[in-house]
Order: sequence, then structure tokens, then C-alpha cells
Amino acid sequence: MPAGFASTPEPPYYAVIFTSQRTAGDHGYEATAQAMFELALKQPGCLGAESVRGDNGLGITVAYFTDEPAIRAWKQNSEHLVAQRLGKERWYSHYELRVAKVERAYSGPELSRPTRQSAKGSARNPVVASDRASFRNRQQ
Amino acid sequence: MPAGFASTPEPPYYAVIFTSQRTAGDHGYEATAQAMFELALKQPGCLGAESVRGDNGLGITVAYFTDEPAIRAWKQNSEHLVAQRLGKERWYSHYELRVAKVERAYSGPELSRPTRQSAKGSARNPVVASDRASFRNRQQ
Repeated sequence: MPAGFASTPEPPYYAVIFTSQRTAGDHGYEATAQAMFELALKQPGCLGAESVRGDNGLGITVAYFTDEPAIRAWKQNSEHLVAQRLGKERWYSHYELRVAKVERAYSGPELSRPTRQSAKGSARNPVVASDRASFRNRQQ
Repeated sequence: MPAGFASTPEPPYYAVIFTSQRTAGDHGYEATAQAMFELALKQPGCLGAESVRGDNGLGITVAYFTDEPAIRAWKQNSEHLVAQRLGKERWYSHYELRVAKVERAYSGPELSRPTRQSAKGSARNPVVASDRASFRNRQQ
């Protein structure tokens, strides 16, 4: 998996989508944000995370977890609680946090056809992985 | 809602999380990306979108939709199909696309207590919206 991307398993799993607007100035933000990103990745049940912040201070971080108990445990982590408090008091002028259940996932940029369906459709026409997008989907 | 944030209703609704790494050079990307962002917002069932790209070319765009049919319609939009093809051929060295059902959502940075629970708990202690995070959650 290229740098910056979370290597997640087949769905279902959970995504915590955190969109935030930074206030002006650092106020200890960068160091803590980096530490929290690394700490999150060490949490039991954390599958990975992706994070981007633009020049205008708008950022999106998506952290992936196996299930709801793993999300709750991370929310209650003591170091994370301190960071959450500082985030509210100093670092963010606004944020939106959404918890979502990932139902299906694709990757590319290989031209996409559902690998699994194709493989099912013709055993004599084996799937060439590099020909198409990986397709990760579990019917619910 | 501050600029850059999607003003979404109470869950449940859907999030399409698109994480991508840009190739070097523009190759028509910026103009098309902007056009697609605006076109997505006009789609029936699109609730809003949030998008950030960092200096390293990693980007996260999250578009919110009412339901699966709205996501499918956007995926099949003819102008969007052209952009998807160009994205695979020119613009992205890698991407991950995840479709997720948003189950609950919060916003801040006001110190958060669940507005709804508090309001329910005491009619004599009315919720002051500016005192705390807005809390949007529907029990499933």
C-alpha cells in the first residue's frame, strides 16, 4: 500500500471521519497531532488512518476501526482525552466528527471491474490482478 | 456552517470516502476536480462534500449522500464517468474508495454533551446551544 493510505481489510469495518478547521498559530498542535496519529495506530482494533490538511487549515482525518468497542476505547484513551480537550479549547475553530460503517471498498487506479464477480463468471478467463482495480466487497 | 464543511442532516446517511495520491503535473486535473465537486453537489441526494489536498499530493474527499441509489446515480453520471476514466489514466497513482453508512455525528468545538439527552433530562435547565457541541444521533 502506498504511503499515506490505510491498508484496510475487507468490509465491514468502521470509519471515524474527522473534518476540522485549525485556528491560527500552532499552540502545540503539530506535535500532539502527530503523537495522536501514532497512538491511534497502536490501539487495539485500529486498522489504519489517513490524514490530510490543506494550506487553508481545513483537514480531514479518517481512522478505521474493527468495531464500535474499539472506537469507544480510543475515545476514552487518557492521552487522547487530553488532546480532545486541547482541540476544543485551542486548535479547532470548528469540527465535524462522523462515525460510519464501511460497507464496501475499491482501490485503483487500475481500470475497475469487480474481481470477485469476474472470477466467478469464468474459470477459463483468470483474473489478472494488475489489469483492474482490487475490489473488496462483502454482500450484507 | 463554516466554509469547507458539509452541512449534513441527522444520520443515517452515506459517506463516500475517496483518498487519492496525485501524479505529478496538472494534466487538466484542477479544473475538472473543481467542476466535479460542483457537479456532485447538484446531484439529487447529494448532501454535501468536504475535500482537502495536502502539499504532498495526498487528498481526501468525502461526499455525503442520502442513500445508495443516489451514490449509484452519481457514479453513472456521464460527465463523472469521463472524469473517472481520466483519473485512472492520468491523475492518480493510487486511490481508495470506501462507501460507508454514517450512524452518528457530532460537531464542535463547544464542550460536548449530548444536546438531546440533556434536553430530555431537564426541562428547567434548557440547552444553550453555544455551550456545547451539537450532537446529532439517531438510535438505530
